[in-house]
Amino acid sequence: MKDLAGRVLAGDIRAAARAISLIERREDDLASLVADLYPSTGGAYRIGITGPPGAGKSTLAGCLAQRFVAAGRAVGILAVDIASPFSGGALLGDRIRMQGLASDPAVFIRSMGNEGRPGGLCSAARDAIRVMEAMGKDLVLVETAGVGQSDVDVTHCVDAVVLTLVPESGDEIQLLKAGVMEIADVIALNKYDRPGATGLAGELKETLHARGELDGWESRLVCTVGTHGEGLEELYEALEAFSRHLKSGDRLAVLRERQIRRELRERVEGRLTSRLNAAPARERLDRAVSRVCAGEDDPYNAAERLLGET
Amino acid sequence: MKDLAGRVLAGDIRAAARAISLIERREDDLASLVADLYPSTGGAYRIGITGPPGAGKSTLAGCLAQRFVAAGRAVGILAVDIASPFSGGALLGDRIRMQGLASDPAVFIRSMGNEGRPGGLCSAARDAIRVMEAMGKDLVLVETAGVGQSDVDVTHCVDAVVLTLVPESGDEIQLLKAGVMEIADVIALNKYDRPGATGLAGELKETLHARGELDGWESRLVCTVGTHGEGLEELYEALEAFSRHLKSGDRLAVLRERQIRRELRERVEGRLTSRLNAAPARERLDRAVSRVCAGEDDPYNAAERLLGET
Repeated sequence: MKDLAGRVLAGDIRAAARAISLIERREDDLASLVADLYPSTGGAYRIGITGPPGAGKSTLAGCLAQRFVAAGRAVGILAVDIASPFSGGALLGDRIRMQGLASDPAVFIRSMGNEGRPGGLCSAARDAIRVMEAMGKDLVLVETAGVGQSDVDVTHCVDAVVLTLVPESGDEIQLLKAGVMEIADVIALNKYDRPGATGLAGELKETLHARGELDGWESRLVCTVGTHGEGLEELYEALEAFSRHLKSGDRLAVLRERQIRRELRERVEGRLTSRLNAAPARERLDRAVSRVCAGEDDPYNAAERLLGET
Repeated sequence: MKDLAGRVLAGDIRAAARAISLIERREDDLASLVADLYPSTGGAYRIGITGPPGAGKSTLAGCLAQRFVAAGRAVGILAVDIASPFSGGALLGDRIRMQGLASDPAVFIRSMGNEGRPGGLCSAARDAIRVMEAMGKDLVLVETAGVGQSDVDVTHCVDAVVLTLVPESGDEIQLLKAGVMEIADVIALNKYDRPGATGLAGELKETLHARGELDGWESRLVCTVGTHGEGLEELYEALEAFSRHLKSGDRLAVLRERQIRRELRERVEGRLTSRLNAAPARERLDRAVSRVCAGEDDPYNAAERLLGET
């Protein structure tokens, strides 16, 4: 692990890929790896690209990566894949790879899945971002699968959130207003050459304007056609403007502190859960289950008793 | 609470509705309510109706409720609504109500949402099912929203799972094969009068047959047109056959024990999480966050230290 961390810090691509695989599989001895990498992390501009499936997130991520590379940045792309029961994510990473980015030494691309562990994706994404930072990337794009709660969770690991919509999303906007739209710093209305785009753009602009500034930033709407590169420059500039906004005052520090707090809580909770699966707790659980199944106890009281014994 | 439990046990509809509201809001003093109701629960046949949004789950639930009532059963319907970031569930309960079932005294209908708390829905659904059992329902239909992990979770609270599909689901079947289809005891291919239905039915039958029996039961495929009641009798019979299957041997007891085990674990985990939010733990967390943000500690080590102090 010492050796692996050293190679990651030296910018070794294969070592970084291996480190992310270990993170994805939640290997037991990640602690020493993270400890060795941690001092060299936190330096990248972390951008999340979220939105419903089919909105063109991969294409936009690819375009943005190229634009940032042209601006002299070293870019990492993390495509986060979520095993959803009904809509299931595809191999997003592969889609990006097809755009020929893989041959660009300035771009490091990895996809990772949750392997059926809900909630664990954010934790893994955080550490994968750190690996990319430790290997020298100063900009990390995190593309989500666009399905379910994990999509919202992943926004807790990034500095900026780009919500990607398409003209067809019109019907969902009412719902989006209440949820994901709240956390979007930039909205990319992609596939803007499709019918209904202009009307939706007007509605979105109105909504954003009505909401106004949040901590000095009013979310921007950018209309794009990812496949033609249209609106890309504007999207790039919006993200750079948001980065400047974050760096003015202590905004970025406050944001990162909030994320560290969340991460620590999740880690402690995760470890407590593991404890419940260890041998002594497990036997107490067996007895409690028997009592409840026999009608000698109810689930609330049994849980309370188990808690007292833990 | 004593009084409320007594009224629920007497079959009072308003008391049951109030009890479910308390459960939905996670009121603090639920323990005594559940303790009082618990001895009178567990008697119902609990059927989950899941499947993607728009598959006609509400319609099927309504039809099934009427069919079971005709067979002399007292039916409860719980429509579980999930606040999804992108596709968001609608007011499913209201849709059922429109079918005129609300006026039938043998059917008790309630919808409940997760109010943005991921993972908590299953816990609430379990207790809501108990309320329905305590008030005298001997059959409970749980309709899911069809979005995300909570849909799979809810199947852990029921005895039988009906997966509702439509001909348009064809493209998703490959994905479904790996996930939800595994947990379906009966598959209802609804809107069977639409194009592509016959082909999909053939594929599904082949898949189910190839999978074969699981603990003596081969999942059944039933083709339905919910709005015309077509295939309803067959669906009803498939569910009754599965009920007989569960009751032969100790299958139902084993299933319920597994669910109780899961519930107890979740409850203990939930309580441990609450403890982390209490004052002394919170101050330790504050200090740990400061250390990590200052680069004096890494998140893994800080979490480990916090755990030692808990």
